[in-house]
Amino acid sequence: MGYPDTFEGFVVDSPKTYSTFHKAELTPKPFEDHDVDVQIECCGVCGSDVHTVTGGWGEFEGPLCVGHEVVGKAVKVGKAVKLVKEGDRVGVGAQVWSCLKCDVCKSKNENYCPHLVDTYNAKYPDGSTAHGGWANYIRAHEYFVFPLPSALKSETAAPLLCAGLTTYSPLVRADIGPGKTVAILGIGGLGHLALQWAKALGAEVYALSHSAHKVDDAKKLGAKEVILTNKEDWAKDLAFKFDMILNCADATDKFDLKTYLSTLKVGGQFHLCGLPDNPLPQLKAFDLVGNAAKLTGSHLGNRQEMEAMLQLAADKGIAPLVETLPLGEKGCKEAVERLQKNDVRYRFTLTGFDKAFGQ
Amino acid sequence: MGYPDTFEGFVVDSPKTYSTFHKAELTPKPFEDHDVDVQIECCGVCGSDVHTVTGGWGEFEGPLCVGHEVVGKAVKVGKAVKLVKEGDRVGVGAQVWSCLKCDVCKSKNENYCPHLVDTYNAKYPDGSTAHGGWANYIRAHEYFVFPLPSALKSETAAPLLCAGLTTYSPLVRADIGPGKTVAILGIGGLGHLALQWAKALGAEVYALSHSAHKVDDAKKLGAKEVILTNKEDWAKDLAFKFDMILNCADATDKFDLKTYLSTLKVGGQFHLCGLPDNPLPQLKAFDLVGNAAKLTGSHLGNRQEMEAMLQLAADKGIAPLVETLPLGEKGCKEAVERLQKNDVRYRFTLTGFDKAFGQ
Repeated sequence: MGYPDTFEGFVVDSPKTYSTFHKAELTPKPFEDHDVDVQIECCGVCGSDVHTVTGGWGEFEGPLCVGHEVVGKAVKVGKAVKLVKEGDRVGVGAQVWSCLKCDVCKSKNENYCPHLVDTYNAKYPDGSTAHGGWANYIRAHEYFVFPLPSALKSETAAPLLCAGLTTYSPLVRADIGPGKTVAILGIGGLGHLALQWAKALGAEVYALSHSAHKVDDAKKLGAKEVILTNKEDWAKDLAFKFDMILNCADATDKFDLKTYLSTLKVGGQFHLCGLPDNPLPQLKAFDLVGNAAKLTGSHLGNRQEMEAMLQLAADKGIAPLVETLPLGEKGCKEAVERLQKNDVRYRFTLTGFDKAFGQ
Repeated sequence: MGYPDTFEGFVVDSPKTYSTFHKAELTPKPFEDHDVDVQIECCGVCGSDVHTVTGGWGEFEGPLCVGHEVVGKAVKVGKAVKLVKEGDRVGVGAQVWSCLKCDVCKSKNENYCPHLVDTYNAKYPDGSTAHGGWANYIRAHEYFVFPLPSALKSETAAPLLCAGLTTYSPLVRADIGPGKTVAILGIGGLGHLALQWAKALGAEVYALSHSAHKVDDAKKLGAKEVILTNKEDWAKDLAFKFDMILNCADATDKFDLKTYLSTLKVGGQFHLCGLPDNPLPQLKAFDLVGNAAKLTGSHLGNRQEMEAMLQLAADKGIAPLVETLPLGEKGCKEAVERLQKNDVRYRFTLTGFDKAFGQ
């Protein structure tokens, strides 16, 4: 078999062999009227991919094809599709379906739909499996397929589809803009994009990091100042400073969360972008009430936010710093192993899909 | 000595003898131009009093006079005082001073001022001790002294000064009103007031309780429905239901917090009114991100909220359900011991101050 009946992707079989990828046949969901098939050109590597293949977020049923920062060409569109045209260069992020009928979807929160289907390691209501983008094709509902502005390069657009939206949405939902002071915590795959959004939105931007060697990068990316959190008393003069701390770091379980919360303005929020495997540090009510601090988190963003973010990136030349690796057994292995060690500045994109699949 | 140089109050000496009260002389702060002296008529008994005398919130320096739901008569006003007139019937809550100069105060968040002085177990910047309201007099800055609408009875107005404001402020700051759905969690001293505010503000109100015997009370106080949280699967049909859960319960450490969070709308908040001694249950980021839930808390409210709340109570006949006890060694002992056991429906007010102090 082959396309359109089956796709091919690089898969892992279990958490024990999480970096051993091999090529396998994937059966997509049945093609329906609102579906779009995308022939994949490149795909980002996200922390979620590592959390999933290592079993950090729980067991999975292998073979598993990850990847949810997909850029490619729409090669087939269902007869009801209106948002995408055949031939469009498009992106697909970490979600491929929601019901679009419930109150949550109707309130433009389809990224929280109780019936939503993640891009991989997920089942559709009909029992079909959703397969990720380290593959030759992906199939998704048109509402989760986004035509890309021509100014964006494919390799750097890919990480925007998940890392970009995940950091952009909470900033705009918190009304971050002129007059607001925001701290981006953790300058990595998520944080280095968050700095750029916060700056572009007009806020006063600080970076919080324990890595002195990232100071220059953080400043170039939009931070007015970098606050090194491994210095004692780093928070001493920061009480009531930030409207928001956007936590882009993964190692939140090791944080002195109480001290971070103490730097928020009254009613300010400490917002989790990432989804660490480990529980958060335990809090007392006292840690929240001194400034009515809010501890919160979010999951991706909605379609309107995705479109606005892509346009903002095109208009202002915002892009992730990307290292490319060739799709294949070796490239996939290197990607997940190095990402797990945080050995990337700041994002990987897998390329060479045409070669990997002999197209 | 005696008034105005010293006051008299009922005090405890240490957490070990937390319910053994005796009469003692108290030295107030020096009287300044913005100060008001209030001759006390009655005073509420708050969970905070119990947390403090038992040492649950930490050690204290005895002798300690608690009480921060004070109603009485303004008998002396400083020469700069504009908000209160001599002879006014007034209330004093859980805060007696803030700097009124910092950015926090200027943004009408004086209840979060980093220099704020609590009504008792606290020191003024000059080193003077603040003494609570189980006493014949209290001295406070005029900004924290509130003329009471004549429609309010003193005995039922007293608990409004802390319990009332503590539950009213987070509701209005969360824009609770028509079209919003709010759950009041824990039907006790705080919760039975929160039900009444939420109803008066126009929201659809639910009570969450593990006490079947409180169902009738909760409905009378404003709940459209009472959800019994000791039933298995109580939250099964409540996903995305509430804009806000106002947690008025103390035993939060025993809660299945994750399940409560799951009942919030996208971006809804779980708001802590009380300040339990024990840490909160530990959370994972996953517990927040499925609906972008916010975990937060607050401390009292500002002057404008206090005034609006007192007027709302006067206009709509809102009052706590109060049992009175006579101020004295016996009455104070009974109050803290029974409150510690939750043996009150729903609030105590200490009365008979004239008799206790031979006035």
